[in-house]
Amino acid sequence: MYTCEIISVGTELLLGDILNTNEQFLSKELASMGIAVLHRSSVGDNRERLAEEIRLALKRSDIVITSGGLGPTPDDLTKEVCCEVMECPLAENKEQTEKIKRYFEKKGMDMPESNLKQALLPVGGIVFENNNGTAPGGAIEKNGKCLIFLPGPPRELIPMFRGCAKPLLKKYSSGTIVSHNIRTMEIGESALAELARDHMDLPNPTVAPYAKDGEALLRVTAGAESEERAEELCKPVIEDILKRLGKYVYGVDYDSIQQRVVELLHKHNKKLAIAESCTAGYTAKRLTEIPGSSEVFDCGIVSYSNDIKMNLLGVSEATLKQYGAVSSQTACEMAEGVRRTGGADLGISITGVAGPGSDSENKPAGLVYIAISDGKKTVWEKLETGRENDREYNRYVSASRALNLVRKYLEKII
Amino acid sequence: MYTCEIISVGTELLLGDILNTNEQFLSKELASMGIAVLHRSSVGDNRERLAEEIRLALKRSDIVITSGGLGPTPDDLTKEVCCEVMECPLAENKEQTEKIKRYFEKKGMDMPESNLKQALLPVGGIVFENNNGTAPGGAIEKNGKCLIFLPGPPRELIPMFRGCAKPLLKKYSSGTIVSHNIRTMEIGESALAELARDHMDLPNPTVAPYAKDGEALLRVTAGAESEERAEELCKPVIEDILKRLGKYVYGVDYDSIQQRVVELLHKHNKKLAIAESCTAGYTAKRLTEIPGSSEVFDCGIVSYSNDIKMNLLGVSEATLKQYGAVSSQTACEMAEGVRRTGGADLGISITGVAGPGSDSENKPAGLVYIAISDGKKTVWEKLETGRENDREYNRYVSASRALNLVRKYLEKII
Repeated sequence: MYTCEIISVGTELLLGDILNTNEQFLSKELASMGIAVLHRSSVGDNRERLAEEIRLALKRSDIVITSGGLGPTPDDLTKEVCCEVMECPLAENKEQTEKIKRYFEKKGMDMPESNLKQALLPVGGIVFENNNGTAPGGAIEKNGKCLIFLPGPPRELIPMFRGCAKPLLKKYSSGTIVSHNIRTMEIGESALAELARDHMDLPNPTVAPYAKDGEALLRVTAGAESEERAEELCKPVIEDILKRLGKYVYGVDYDSIQQRVVELLHKHNKKLAIAESCTAGYTAKRLTEIPGSSEVFDCGIVSYSNDIKMNLLGVSEATLKQYGAVSSQTACEMAEGVRRTGGADLGISITGVAGPGSDSENKPAGLVYIAISDGKKTVWEKLETGRENDREYNRYVSASRALNLVRKYLEKII
Repeated sequence: MYTCEIISVGTELLLGDILNTNEQFLSKELASMGIAVLHRSSVGDNRERLAEEIRLALKRSDIVITSGGLGPTPDDLTKEVCCEVMECPLAENKEQTEKIKRYFEKKGMDMPESNLKQALLPVGGIVFENNNGTAPGGAIEKNGKCLIFLPGPPRELIPMFRGCAKPLLKKYSSGTIVSHNIRTMEIGESALAELARDHMDLPNPTVAPYAKDGEALLRVTAGAESEERAEELCKPVIEDILKRLGKYVYGVDYDSIQQRVVELLHKHNKKLAIAESCTAGYTAKRLTEIPGSSEVFDCGIVSYSNDIKMNLLGVSEATLKQYGAVSSQTACEMAEGVRRTGGADLGISITGVAGPGSDSENKPAGLVYIAISDGKKTVWEKLETGRENDREYNRYVSASRALNLVRKYLEKII
């Protein structure tokens, strides 16, 4: 398997002014081509350090891709340093000179002389046209190594990688890597790992657990000479894991629980209404991230006060007095209330303490009740996130669990 | 000036599964302390490569900070490798063992044996408590070098860096850098830059424009021997810029428009109600991100269908028939409707086409109407984001602009 290293160039990166999204994009693309990325690094606009980094990378890896530092200003050095390290002279490329001149004409702007620097290109190298800016990229192949330089702005780098670098890299591709994500809720990362332990010891496919935002997933990854073969390797492992995990799994390769829920609502031809207290719109917002959600969702009510819970959702004053706003009883009345008010088949509700700190009824942050009602039965669950000071987490996870309740209802698990 | 290197650990990073936001956070924090970050790198969960990377970093830099690889699974190696490289043994820390056990008890979950690995800590090192997870971080200072290991998840890393690592690093800090962000809406990045051009040519403080998510900001940054002196340098520049930008500025150093709006609602003792169509809860969700918002917000209604607009908000059938759901007329009736229904002082509304693609009335994605009503007058605005295929952006910006409408109303600009 060929190896590749990514070097991001720019002092603004090291100052934290810019989030480096190029690295993730390139890493994903290379992984899908079966090229192993074992190192990534970032350096500033400094000739010595950049040269040192490129030399080290070329020693360790077959392919090196740099991004950034192709601009017209004196601190843009990447191309010059690449050529220096590869011992490859630069020369003016007339075609590029003309292109840059036309670019400025088209924009009705005067071309600064410094931009002509961008038309200097490595002799014997490959030129990558830039259709979204003035800096061409390129590649130098020499002594069994391949050095590629790309511009820094993502809207220039992404099309250039796809259009120019990827075709060039095809010859380094070793078959294909295929990944599948088994997404779960209500089970921790380590419990998940325990359940799949024997699979985790095998080399191909590999199985690895990840936890994020109150969810856990198992990723099954296989490498093979063809996509078909890689899929064949994954299939029995995924099937076996799905059997073991059962109801915890909300889907394989879904982007989110809301994607699964919208699909299930469509499939069962059901409309959902949502009543939210502590999440205050977060659940509705997430459900409606999915295009087409408007066919299964009409009505959401954010009832941040007891008055609104009574007036719009029909929660009884007695319930609020006796059990408080954060209680299973209130959650159940909210769910049924919003179902009725919204004219929907199913109603869900979320009421709890988002934090930081306890609420006026002295209930702890992270205590949340969720419920679902279909007009005949109402089912509730109690959550305790244990995070007193993480308002965003408590709200996110409460919304996730409420959506998961819909999933479990429609899959007849509850 | 002391130098620092950041090493991010995790195969999931190199596969591109995760966007590395820790690097940017740490870079910013270190820059503000006057510690120079000259290199950053990422490696996978591989013992040899990780050890090699840490060795190289310790050779080049005074401080090395790793993130990730502190989890309970066998591929979490960072702590062990840090100790190996620093020649520092690991031993069980009883306090941490108890803490981890309590964490699981509180969650009502069984603790997998593997989690106990997280209680092994370097002998003679400093322990960083993790209040948001089970993996403690820490630091080893030896031979004039400082090696810090932090957990990977940002919501664990960020508070641990601020609470534990930053105080420890204070002794490496050389002077102070102070930054202030002048946050604006409804003006572009380049127009902003034009207005502040003369300030942008000066070296200290520096003034730089940034654009993000439909907003633009000017960052004013000064370096000096003391914080006080740096603030003195910033002050006149900020004052001058504020005068020039006037109504476009919603605040200096606010985290978000919602923070400003909640503050203004408190100040004017007003309650807000929110009616949302295309944003479907996003506006209410963002307003309620702010602790204390419950005192100024009771009621949100997500009216994703015309029926709900009529039944819950009192939008007239005639308006919907004549002008459509996406119109200034509907927006105005929604704003006044939710104000009345929610018993609030002010009502705002958002109705538009989030995309991708046009809506059933053939209006283009990115066309959005927003309105605000106080019961006496109703003011509306029309937005055209021009982004046909960016549902998230269209929804985010619409919510921002609706919140900005509240800001402008309360500041008596409209």
